[in-house]
Amino acid sequence: MKNLILSTIIFLSFASIKVTAQNSDSLAIRHIFSNALADTTSYHNLRNLTGHYSKRLAGSDQSQKAVKWAEQVLKNMGLDTVWLQECRVRHWDRGEKETGKVISVKAGNHNLRICALGGSISTATKGLTAKIVEVKDYDELKKLGREKINGKIVFINHPADPTLYNTFAAYGGVAGYRVRGAVQAAYYGAVAMIDRSSTTSHDNFPHTGIQHYADTVSKIPALSVSTNDADSLSRWLRSDPDLKVFLKTSCSELPEITSHNIIGEIRGTEVPEEIIAFGGHLDCWDICQGANDDGAGAVQTIDVLRLYRSLNLKPKHTIRVIVYMDEEMEQRGAKAYAEAAKGRKHIAAIEADRGGFTPWGFSIDASDEQIKKVQSWKNLLLPYGLFYFEKGGSGVDIHDLKSQGVPLFGLVPDSQRYFDYHHSANDSFDKVNIRELQLGTATLAVLVYLIDEYGL
Amino acid sequence: MKNLILSTIIFLSFASIKVTAQNSDSLAIRHIFSNALADTTSYHNLRNLTGHYSKRLAGSDQSQKAVKWAEQVLKNMGLDTVWLQECRVRHWDRGEKETGKVISVKAGNHNLRICALGGSISTATKGLTAKIVEVKDYDELKKLGREKINGKIVFINHPADPTLYNTFAAYGGVAGYRVRGAVQAAYYGAVAMIDRSSTTSHDNFPHTGIQHYADTVSKIPALSVSTNDADSLSRWLRSDPDLKVFLKTSCSELPEITSHNIIGEIRGTEVPEEIIAFGGHLDCWDICQGANDDGAGAVQTIDVLRLYRSLNLKPKHTIRVIVYMDEEMEQRGAKAYAEAAKGRKHIAAIEADRGGFTPWGFSIDASDEQIKKVQSWKNLLLPYGLFYFEKGGSGVDIHDLKSQGVPLFGLVPDSQRYFDYHHSANDSFDKVNIRELQLGTATLAVLVYLIDEYGL
Repeated sequence: MKNLILSTIIFLSFASIKVTAQNSDSLAIRHIFSNALADTTSYHNLRNLTGHYSKRLAGSDQSQKAVKWAEQVLKNMGLDTVWLQECRVRHWDRGEKETGKVISVKAGNHNLRICALGGSISTATKGLTAKIVEVKDYDELKKLGREKINGKIVFINHPADPTLYNTFAAYGGVAGYRVRGAVQAAYYGAVAMIDRSSTTSHDNFPHTGIQHYADTVSKIPALSVSTNDADSLSRWLRSDPDLKVFLKTSCSELPEITSHNIIGEIRGTEVPEEIIAFGGHLDCWDICQGANDDGAGAVQTIDVLRLYRSLNLKPKHTIRVIVYMDEEMEQRGAKAYAEAAKGRKHIAAIEADRGGFTPWGFSIDASDEQIKKVQSWKNLLLPYGLFYFEKGGSGVDIHDLKSQGVPLFGLVPDSQRYFDYHHSANDSFDKVNIRELQLGTATLAVLVYLIDEYGL
Repeated sequence: MKNLILSTIIFLSFASIKVTAQNSDSLAIRHIFSNALADTTSYHNLRNLTGHYSKRLAGSDQSQKAVKWAEQVLKNMGLDTVWLQECRVRHWDRGEKETGKVISVKAGNHNLRICALGGSISTATKGLTAKIVEVKDYDELKKLGREKINGKIVFINHPADPTLYNTFAAYGGVAGYRVRGAVQAAYYGAVAMIDRSSTTSHDNFPHTGIQHYADTVSKIPALSVSTNDADSLSRWLRSDPDLKVFLKTSCSELPEITSHNIIGEIRGTEVPEEIIAFGGHLDCWDICQGANDDGAGAVQTIDVLRLYRSLNLKPKHTIRVIVYMDEEMEQRGAKAYAEAAKGRKHIAAIEADRGGFTPWGFSIDASDEQIKKVQSWKNLLLPYGLFYFEKGGSGVDIHDLKSQGVPLFGLVPDSQRYFDYHHSANDSFDKVNIRELQLGTATLAVLVYLIDEYGL
């Protein structure tokens, strides 16, 4: 691609958008985008967070250190107030790196790239060895029944549907097996459950995530296997249906500890008692750097306040960042925040938790009128590739504010690459592009600016 | 990001789009996207092209081998017709890897990451050593004048503006220094010109690209330096304004050779004499794999025909892929195609040459009525993130068809990462995401489908 003249006029048509009546907003928005794109603070924050405080699952030492880091970052910004908000969190610990081995004379012996799912129990110290039964879904599991399942490892090999445009839908179609697969398998007497990683990507990374036990059946070890190894395991099973798998995990559930949300704010000049809140989560899975999930959202929402300071913007309402603890396991930080928010007036809550990719706009969980109001700002936002302002879910960290009548917003970026990284060791700093990250900050700041100016 | 229920309903609002009257189109488009996302042919083609035929600048052996590869790919697809279209191309050869060294007692000796610009002449065999003068732009060059410039190397250090949302505008703001900097510097007696790479990215890759000499001044060696080294060089110059730089290049202009566009088509069932043409370019710069520029566009446009075959779609008009030769140097392939197209009826020409990223839509170089017609299809396309259908330039390989009255379309993907890779060794296969690539194919195919169905 070489031609300059043609290339540089791609966007000229946008210039004709009718912004005459909104010239000052248009200018303010341009300043916000320019500042965000020129400033590298959020990118350096992300480098520090992911480099020094990787594997910061709630309850871990790393997460507690990350809280101190985030507090210091906010304190260094010269905000009006910075404080920690207590929450009790689970302390599940993975223990040693998991072992998974295929043992078969016919199909050969092979290591499996596996990891325990969040909240899983451990195997016996010496591990467990059992035959393995592959199923595609719960119907197949039911058909096989206790007779065929009892004493065996259930391998749920349900690939995410790559043909769906919406990667969240592809993920949503399979993540239920991760969350409830162990319960379903245990119901028929399985001794462990291995789930195909919840991604359309073909890779060597096991993708972890939360899984839940039920009181009604025994707890069995629950693991995830990389998609490439899931394909291999399926192939090996076809050549030797009697092959065995050795599994060893050493997870443990330790006593709960006290952790914290980190909160910082700039007080409103006109209506300080009314709050526009925004945030991402600090914790991440314990096998990765948590760069896209959700280091990006954490540093972007922090950066909204830096940007306000830097441009000397004075919000009428109080604007507040909440860096949430424990999104991945139990959302204890979110619950603590929502509880404390009762009786306080939040005029909007915004969550950034879908990766640091080129922003599209927001999904909005609010009244039709409020959504229409946001859509009336579209022409101001389209020059920045922001075209998506639709009714939809916002995110789990702010969801509990809904019952308090707060309009909720979820930052929606391009999601095509998200599940390549999600909950796996592949979610590392190098996967975040600086400009895409900065654009997310600007997009969040612009929404805050418009809500602050015009309300909902 | 964990919540399933919330996440999976982000896109539900799209479902309400009024497509009742267009249900069959809606279904056809869904089939096109599903097929493109499920099929890995284009990704494997790109892996082969970039792996086996990297550095395929027009005129090079690699480019000639790539022509044979592309011809074979098209022939294996069972198209109605596949042929090669001759074009004469320049054969500029970089020669040995360039050397650039800072020589200074005060600032130290340092290697520079540099490369010759396309079309540059060579230094003397033993290289050249000279003092260096840094300028930010042509005004500064003019102010310094012959007195300060004569006998020195001019270093044009004009950073691309990172604050612009539109990366093509940021590129367009500096690429002129690459194209004409040597001429401007030579006018004042410079012995060589080094240009800061045309990217907002801070990296160690020199980014090359075409540069043009003028008949009115002497030709001098023209080079590009990585942005990181441009910053360093500027710093070293501040500590030692008398530092010298040693440069050695061994470029040569060899006799022109005959090369080819590669063309394949499926004949129309109703109006075969009318053609919908689409293409990307096969050639790329000689220091990279040319994955995003423009291996992606080449394999995507080829894949449109595979997709038609695979879905058993029978176009009314003839649909034709042109894999162009020599976009980067002189667009000789484009000129040969446009010349041969005279008297043939092209109802549309589409170019894909802005990287294999998540598609946004098309820039359209056509009449207002034609653009409105395309925009009337928006609701069919929005569910696939396609929101951009605006007047604008299309691309240099199809531009010459404009004078024949052909409506032109340029595929517009997200461009935030493009210039991180563009014309540098960083433009490699691993930078292309399979889903983003596949979505580009689907987007191209859908436009072809709608034009074929409804005309313009």
